[in-house]
Amino acid sequence: MRFARLGPVGTEIPVVFDGDRALDLRPITLDLDGPFLSGGGIERTRSALAAGALPELADAASLRIGAPITRPSAVYCIGMNYAAHAAESGSAPPEQLVMFMKSPNTVVGPFDDVPIPRGSEKTDWEVELGVVIGRRASYLAARAEAAAHIAGYVIANDLSERDWQLTQSGGQWSKGKSAPGFCPTGPWLVTGDEVDASDVRLQSFVNGEPRQDSRTSDLIFGIDTIVWQLSQFLALEPGDLVLTGTPEGVALSGRFPYLAVDDVVELEIEGLGRQRQRYVAA
Amino acid sequence: MRFARLGPVGTEIPVVFDGDRALDLRPITLDLDGPFLSGGGIERTRSALAAGALPELADAASLRIGAPITRPSAVYCIGMNYAAHAAESGSAPPEQLVMFMKSPNTVVGPFDDVPIPRGSEKTDWEVELGVVIGRRASYLAARAEAAAHIAGYVIANDLSERDWQLTQSGGQWSKGKSAPGFCPTGPWLVTGDEVDASDVRLQSFVNGEPRQDSRTSDLIFGIDTIVWQLSQFLALEPGDLVLTGTPEGVALSGRFPYLAVDDVVELEIEGLGRQRQRYVAA
Repeated sequence: MRFARLGPVGTEIPVVFDGDRALDLRPITLDLDGPFLSGGGIERTRSALAAGALPELADAASLRIGAPITRPSAVYCIGMNYAAHAAESGSAPPEQLVMFMKSPNTVVGPFDDVPIPRGSEKTDWEVELGVVIGRRASYLAARAEAAAHIAGYVIANDLSERDWQLTQSGGQWSKGKSAPGFCPTGPWLVTGDEVDASDVRLQSFVNGEPRQDSRTSDLIFGIDTIVWQLSQFLALEPGDLVLTGTPEGVALSGRFPYLAVDDVVELEIEGLGRQRQRYVAA
Repeated sequence: MRFARLGPVGTEIPVVFDGDRALDLRPITLDLDGPFLSGGGIERTRSALAAGALPELADAASLRIGAPITRPSAVYCIGMNYAAHAAESGSAPPEQLVMFMKSPNTVVGPFDDVPIPRGSEKTDWEVELGVVIGRRASYLAARAEAAAHIAGYVIANDLSERDWQLTQSGGQWSKGKSAPGFCPTGPWLVTGDEVDASDVRLQSFVNGEPRQDSRTSDLIFGIDTIVWQLSQFLALEPGDLVLTGTPEGVALSGRFPYLAVDDVVELEIEGLGRQRQRYVAA
């Protein structure tokens, strides 16, 4: 199934798609949040869909598309998880999961304008496969348990201010990952039965020119390994967002300019839709 | 004023103290959260206190003491912010704010048992002055604007698994900062008019023996500087928790053993009360 949240910031309406028709989920839930995901909401949606019990949302195509989940309790990011991106960043591929965090309030809609932070000269894109947690995960006994704790997948843009990330925080990256609007997410939350997230193409474009173009099969640490390993170090909560890393082709490589006002970034992941953001002055 | 949250995990009752009497805040708010802090809740509490309009909470002394704020949207931590601690960690004092993040679900009550994570051999204490944000802070124009965005202060224990923090995440510290229970907070949220947080003594003890003993006047980056500078890189939300750094005297120094099951850690900050945690197997 494909879920989305449509409408103005803060009052988005949860929907599920039946083909191109957006069906209003409010008979089942007021929002796509942790309690919905962990409380059997996906199964209830499947039953309601099969029973034809959900009304079509009027004028859905005219509504803003929000992030397809409410603000997570945490956004975990895996760094250097594609060998070619590690190389372009000047690093060897990691032997252990490199984990850092973004502020949860960076999560915004996939078509919202993104403010380039004041003083930023190095705002950079990163297309990433995002994993949405469906069930609390703590001390999973094996990698094979991960899938049951995943609700589905999203596109995310793990935007970065490279100077703040790499040189202005003693090497701790979060300072350059947390500016307002720095995590466009969506358009859809797609359940795992509809997409084989372990092998999909992911791409980014700036002003229509190709930048990143890779496949999640090139991940050093795969999706199930990430969820299983993270659960040894912390407790993943329903609705949390885990970004799995970005492939080569970002501005940090030196091959492309950083983002400027009026640039347009597009991100696409096979089966998960497409994002498009215009960059504006903060 | 001194605020607290009393009762079982998840159903804590908000109170404000009048001397030693815990007054029930539920006529004013259901919880001590971001909307309360940013919506004039502290001023309404002050008026209700002056008017004698709040009932005493029955049996308050028998109730568990929770964290004095609900789960924050983010926990920001400042690293290496006392010169002597930077030295014992093998680092030079930073020239810029070193910021990293902890999972918000680490925030627990100040007397709750703390699980030593499975596989951990280097669980370490860190007494810290915690700043609770009262009003959204983004692009503050000057350090002098910070105070108006601070609701008050708490004690926090920024617990760390040193191996996971320093050697198992490519240098990104969050992996060793986010285990369940790794941020005991409280007992009280104390407003700025009751404590000069810029110069208070902070101490920690393990099994009754002194460990850390310093003053916040030794902070390299002071409270107002931290809030002002962070607001240039991200948006602080009402109810967010900012930990200001820890002074020397942690196990990482090599002078003391790491924590083990049945150890008892106590933390005290002048004017902010005292915490006490027993360490248990996860």
